[in-house]
Amino acid sequence: MPIPKIGPGAILVKVEMAGICGTDVHLQRGDLTIKPPVPILPGHETIGKIVELGEGRTRDWAGEPLKVGDRIMWAHEDCGECYFCTVVRMPVLCERRSGYGFGPPELLRGGFSEYEYIGPKTMVVKVPEELSGEEAIGVGCAFRSVMAGFERLGGVHVGERVVVQGAGPIGLYSLLLAAEGGASRVIVVGAPRKRLELAKRWGASEVVDIDEVKDPGKRKEIVLSLTEGRGPEVVVEASGVAEAINEGLEMVQKGGRYLVLGQSSFAKVQIMPSLITSKNLTIIGSISATIAHFYKALQFLKAKRGKYPLGEIVTKRYRLEEINEALDRMALGEEIKPVIDFR
Amino acid sequence: MPIPKIGPGAILVKVEMAGICGTDVHLQRGDLTIKPPVPILPGHETIGKIVELGEGRTRDWAGEPLKVGDRIMWAHEDCGECYFCTVVRMPVLCERRSGYGFGPPELLRGGFSEYEYIGPKTMVVKVPEELSGEEAIGVGCAFRSVMAGFERLGGVHVGERVVVQGAGPIGLYSLLLAAEGGASRVIVVGAPRKRLELAKRWGASEVVDIDEVKDPGKRKEIVLSLTEGRGPEVVVEASGVAEAINEGLEMVQKGGRYLVLGQSSFAKVQIMPSLITSKNLTIIGSISATIAHFYKALQFLKAKRGKYPLGEIVTKRYRLEEINEALDRMALGEEIKPVIDFR
Amino acid sequence: MPIPKIGPGAILVKVEMAGICGTDVHLQRGDLTIKPPVPILPGHETIGKIVELGEGRTRDWAGEPLKVGDRIMWAHEDCGECYFCTVVRMPVLCERRSGYGFGPPELLRGGFSEYEYIGPKTMVVKVPEELSGEEAIGVGCAFRSVMAGFERLGGVHVGERVVVQGAGPIGLYSLLLAAEGGASRVIVVGAPRKRLELAKRWGASEVVDIDEVKDPGKRKEIVLSLTEGRGPEVVVEASGVAEAINEGLEMVQKGGRYLVLGQSSFAKVQIMPSLITSKNLTIIGSISATIAHFYKALQFLKAKRGKYPLGEIVTKRYRLEEINEALDRMALGEEIKPVIDFR
Amino acid sequence: MPIPKIGPGAILVKVEMAGICGTDVHLQRGDLTIKPPVPILPGHETIGKIVELGEGRTRDWAGEPLKVGDRIMWAHEDCGECYFCTVVRMPVLCERRSGYGFGPPELLRGGFSEYEYIGPKTMVVKVPEELSGEEAIGVGCAFRSVMAGFERLGGVHVGERVVVQGAGPIGLYSLLLAAEGGASRVIVVGAPRKRLELAKRWGASEVVDIDEVKDPGKRKEIVLSLTEGRGPEVVVEASGVAEAINEGLEMVQKGGRYLVLGQSSFAKVQIMPSLITSKNLTIIGSISATIAHFYKALQFLKAKRGKYPLGEIVTKRYRLEEINEALDRMALGEEIKPVIDFR
Repeated sequence: MPIPKIGPGAILVKVEMAGICGTDVHLQRGDLTIKPPVPILPGHETIGKIVELGEGRTRDWAGEPLKVGDRIMWAHEDCGECYFCTVVRMPVLCERRSGYGFGPPELLRGGFSEYEYIGPKTMVVKVPEELSGEEAIGVGCAFRSVMAGFERLGGVHVGERVVVQGAGPIGLYSLLLAAEGGASRVIVVGAPRKRLELAKRWGASEVVDIDEVKDPGKRKEIVLSLTEGRGPEVVVEASGVAEAINEGLEMVQKGGRYLVLGQSSFAKVQIMPSLITSKNLTIIGSISATIAHFYKALQFLKAKRGKYPLGEIVTKRYRLEEINEALDRMALGEEIKPVIDFR
Repeated sequence: MPIPKIGPGAILVKVEMAGICGTDVHLQRGDLTIKPPVPILPGHETIGKIVELGEGRTRDWAGEPLKVGDRIMWAHEDCGECYFCTVVRMPVLCERRSGYGFGPPELLRGGFSEYEYIGPKTMVVKVPEELSGEEAIGVGCAFRSVMAGFERLGGVHVGERVVVQGAGPIGLYSLLLAAEGGASRVIVVGAPRKRLELAKRWGASEVVDIDEVKDPGKRKEIVLSLTEGRGPEVVVEASGVAEAINEGLEMVQKGGRYLVLGQSSFAKVQIMPSLITSKNLTIIGSISATIAHFYKALQFLKAKRGKYPLGEIVTKRYRLEEINEALDRMALGEEIKPVIDFR
Repeated sequence: MPIPKIGPGAILVKVEMAGICGTDVHLQRGDLTIKPPVPILPGHETIGKIVELGEGRTRDWAGEPLKVGDRIMWAHEDCGECYFCTVVRMPVLCERRSGYGFGPPELLRGGFSEYEYIGPKTMVVKVPEELSGEEAIGVGCAFRSVMAGFERLGGVHVGERVVVQGAGPIGLYSLLLAAEGGASRVIVVGAPRKRLELAKRWGASEVVDIDEVKDPGKRKEIVLSLTEGRGPEVVVEASGVAEAINEGLEMVQKGGRYLVLGQSSFAKVQIMPSLITSKNLTIIGSISATIAHFYKALQFLKAKRGKYPLGEIVTKRYRLEEINEALDRMALGEEIKPVIDFR
Repeated sequence: MPIPKIGPGAILVKVEMAGICGTDVHLQRGDLTIKPPVPILPGHETIGKIVELGEGRTRDWAGEPLKVGDRIMWAHEDCGECYFCTVVRMPVLCERRSGYGFGPPELLRGGFSEYEYIGPKTMVVKVPEELSGEEAIGVGCAFRSVMAGFERLGGVHVGERVVVQGAGPIGLYSLLLAAEGGASRVIVVGAPRKRLELAKRWGASEVVDIDEVKDPGKRKEIVLSLTEGRGPEVVVEASGVAEAINEGLEMVQKGGRYLVLGQSSFAKVQIMPSLITSKNLTIIGSISATIAHFYKALQFLKAKRGKYPLGEIVTKRYRLEEINEALDRMALGEEIKPVIDFR
C-alpha cells in the first residue's frame, strides 16, 4: 500500500504494537453483529510512534505537545455532529463513527500494518513514558471499554462484593478496576487456569475455574458461600458468552447491579424476565469508549504499575507474518492478549 | 371467621372496596413465582374504613390524626430489621415481608373479606377525602408499583418519548406518570380496544392495538415512525408477557432506558444479549413499593382528578359472592380493574 | 464593518432578532466576573436567517438540511479538545470557548449587528417553523441555560413543590420546566408585578411579590404555609442577587435540592454553612449550555406553544439605534426580554 | 442513677469505651445549632458490652444472634414514621429522632456513664471480634458520618484527586475512604502536625500544614501545583471551620464536587455565590448516618486493619473522672480521638 499524504491535522504513525482482540477472531469468522467490508485491514488496538504530524496538530487532547517520535493511542472517530453525539451525548453511539481496524486496506486505518494513517478528526492521547507497550496495549480496546462501562455503572462502591464473569482482557481489567475502586472482594469466574492465575496476581480474592466446576448451579453455590448467601452487589459480564447472562442474573444479589460488557455476537439465550423485577435489578450495557476513557485508563495503569504485573497480560508476541497463527491460537483461548510486535 | 382482638397499634377496618388484580388470577391458577399457602384469603389492594384503633395508633405515617370512620390504605409490612431493610435500604426486598392478600384466612389479612385486620407495624395512609373509592383503589397495587418503578428510573425527563407496553392498570398509570412527568409523547401498545380507549382519555398520544397489529416487526415500524426513526428514549414494560421483553429491547432508542414492571411469572423468553451492549441500554426492574409510594400516588391522583376520568379504570363492581365470576372475566381481559364493592 | 469572507463550514446570517440579556447590562457596567475586551460587539442570543453557507455546511447538528433562508440559532463554540471538553466532558467549562457577543466588532460575532459571522466549528440548530421569533428568542441564553441546569438537577420529580427565586427570563423558563416536568406546585418569588403576572399565565401556582413582601422572613413564612410547613423540595435561584442564596437555603425543605442558575457577579453574601449539613442539602450550580439544550428547548417550546402565551416574554421591540435606551430600561427592570428587531 | 428496668426489646450495656467528640466540647460551650436540655448525659459514640437483653431482642439488625457479653454499637433512634423517615426516606432528618448523648442523665442514654440503656427501637450492630475498642470507637460518630456522606457523594471515582480539609477524625476517615475508594491522590490540609503524621500513615499522598502555611492563597497554590493546575475533582470539608468553605470553593476543580461534612455551628462566612455557577459545582451536605453506615464502617475497618494502624486515632485514654480534663485538651486540639476507657 502507498503511504497516504498527510494533510492538515492528520498523523502518520509507525505501528509499534498491535493487539489482537477476540473481535478480530470473530471478524475472521464473520459472526459479529457488525459486517465490515472485505478486504479489510484489521487491528483496532494499536500503539504507534509518530512519523509525521499534519499541519495544526500540535497537541494531544490534554494539551500535551506532540512531536515526531511520541507514542500515541487513538479512539474511533466520532462525527461530533449527529443526534447521538450532540443531543444524546453518547458518542459511542455515533451514527457516522469511523473506526480503525474495520475498513479497507487502502485507507491504512488498521494496526495490522507497518504504518497507519490517523485522520484529522481522530482524538489521540500520548502513552505515558513510564508504560511499556505490553503494559499499555490493553487500553486500546478492552480497558477503555471497561473504564467506560464502570462509569456507566457509577463505579463500584467501597465494600461491595463483585463477581467478574470471564477472565480475558475485559474480565481482568474489570477485576483491577473493581479491586482498586474499593470492592471488598472480587471473584473471577472463568477459564483457563492460566488466565485465572494472572487474575490472582491482579488482585482477585477468589477464582472459580469453569473448566473444573462445569455446573452453573454449583458455581452459584460457591459464589453465594463467599458472599454471606446473598450474592455479590455487582456482577460484571466479561465473557462474551450469551449463556453467562443467566448465571449473572442468578448470582447477583437482590437489588444489585449487572454490568454487561462482553456480549457482541448474534447468540441468543433464554432468560426468565421475572428475575429482573423480583430481584429489583439494574442491568447496564456498555459498548466502546471515548478518548476520555483511554486517558483515564492510561493514567490508572501508570499509577498502579508498581503494584501489579500489568505487562503479563501480553502472553505472546508475534511478527506480522504470523498473524493467522496468532488468530488461531487466540480462538483456542490459548492466549490472553497476544500482540504483533513491530519493534 | 372470628374478628381478631385489636391489640396496641393494630387496626380493624371494614372493607369498603377490594381491587381484583391480575396477580389474583395467577394466584388462582398457581403460575406465580411465589407460592402462598392454601387456603388463602386474597385481596391485596384494599380501601378500609377504620372500625377500631389499637392503643397508640393515633396518626397515619404523615402525622395526620386517625379516627374511627377514616378511610385508609396500607402497605405490605416490612420487618425494618433485615439486611435488605437496613443495609441495602430496599424494604421491597425485605426477607420477612409479611403481606396482605397472601396469607391464611384466619389472620384476616386479605381484602376479599368484610373485615380486615391491620397489624401494629403496618404503615397506613389516609385516603384523601376528595377521592372516590374508584379513583383511589388502583393505588393499592398497580399505581404504587408504578410510582416506585418511576423513582428507580429517575423519572421521565422533559421532552422524552415513552412507549408503554400493556394497557392494564400498570400500563395506564405508567402512561399517566409519563405524560404528567414531561414526556412529549406517550405511545401505548396493548389491547383490547376498550383499554386503549381509556388510554387515550388518560393522555396517550397514540395507541397501537396488538389485536390489530399482530406482527411485532410491524409494531416496531409504527413506533419508529412516531419517533423520528430512532425509537423512544424510555420503554415501560407493563404487559406481564415475557415476549414483550424482546419487543422492548428492539424498540427502545440506543442509549435509552427500559423499565420492567410487569414480569411476575415463570415464563421464559429468548433474547439476544448483544442488544444490551450494542445499544448501550439501561434496564431497570422494579417490584412492589413502600408507603411513600402510596402517599405520592394518592397525592398525585388528588391533584389530577379534574384533568382525567380517573375512576373509569374501575370497569365493574361485584359483590363478594361474585368473586369467581370476577376472576374469570379478569382472566379473559374483559375488565381493566374490577372491584368488590362492600359499600 | 466589512462582511467577512465565508470559508468552508462557516455561515453568514442576516440577524432577524437579537435578545438583550441582563448580562449585556452588566457588560455595559463592567461588573461581571468575566472581562471581555473593548470595543465589543454584544448580542449573544440571536436568531439569524442564513445568507450564505460555507462549503461542506449542509446540515444542522440533527441532520436537518440547511439552506439559504433558514432561521438558525447557535451555541458558543467549544474547542472539543481541551481537558474539560474531552475528559470532564463538560464543554460549558471549555478552556478555549469562543463565544458570540463577547468579542471585538471586526469579527462580526455578536447579535447587535445587521449581519453575523458563524464560524465553521460552531454548532447550529434550525428554529422550528412553528415558532415566531418572540417565542424562540429566549432559547438563545436563558432557556438553554435553564434546560442545562435542570439536567444537572436530574429534573423535577412528579409531585415535588418548587420555589423559583426571580421572575426574569431564567425564572420564567424555570417555572415552565418545573410545571411541565411534574411539579405539583410552583411558587415564583420575584418582582415586578408585570413579570409575576406573566408567571401566572405561564403556570405559577402562586407568586410572592418581593416589592410588597419586603421581609425575607415573611416570604419564608408564606412559602412554608404553602408547603405544609416543610418548604419546597426544590428551589431554583434565578434572581442573580447574591442575598437570594440565604433565602433559598432557608426555604428549601430538609433533604432538598437547590439549583443555582442566576449568580454571575462579584457580589458576596454571608451564609451559615451549617445549614448545608444540618439540612442534608444538595446545591447544584450550572452555567451556560450546549447545542443539545438549544435543541431540547426549541422542541419543548414547539410542543407547548398552544398552551402558554410564550411570545409575551418579549415585552418590547427596539431598533438597533435604540440599543442604549433598551439597556437603560432593562437595567431598571422595566422589561422582561426586550429585543432588537431587524425584520 | 438507678439502672432502668429492661423491658421488651431494650438492652442494658456496660460501657466499655466512650469516645469524646468535638461536638461534646461545643456542647459544653453551648455554641451548637442544637440546644439540648441541662443537665445532660453526654457521650454519643460508645461501645457497650451487653449485660441484659430485653425479651424479643435476639439478633442485631443483620440477623447475627445477640447474647450477653457481646460488644455492640448503636445508632440514634429514628421514629420510622414521620414524613422524613417514610416519604423522604432520609431518617437522619427524622423529626422525632431520639439520640444518645443529648438527653437528661436519668434516662441513662449517654456514654459518659458506667451503664447505658438502649431503647427497644434502637438499631444495634455487633462489633466484629477482630476489632479492638480503639479501632472501632471512631465508627460511633465520625466514621459512620463519613460513610453516609460518601454515599451521598456517590463515592470517589477511580483516579480522582481529593482534598480533605481538616485532620480530625472526620478528616482522617474521609482520607481513608477516598484512598481505598480509588482516589489517585488524597491531600490533607489541616493541623496540628501530629494529626498530619497520622494522615500520612493512613495513606495521604501529601499533607499541607495550616500552622505552617497560614495563607489560604498559598495553600491553594500548593494544591493546584499537585493537581496539574486544575484542582481536585473532589473536596471534603471536615474541618468544622466556616472559613474553610471559601477555601474549598476556590480549590475544587471546575465541574467538581464539594462534600460538606464538618459544619455544625452558628458561624457564618462570606462567600461569592457566582463561584458555584461559574465553576458548575455540586455541593453536598451530609449529617449523621443510619445503622447501615455503622455496619459498613465496621466491615471496612475489619478488612483494612492489617493495612493501616487504625487504633492510633485514639491518642489518649481517660478515666471517667478525668472527663473535664479530656474536654479541655480536646478543645485545645491536643488529641485526635480521646476516649473514656471503662475496661
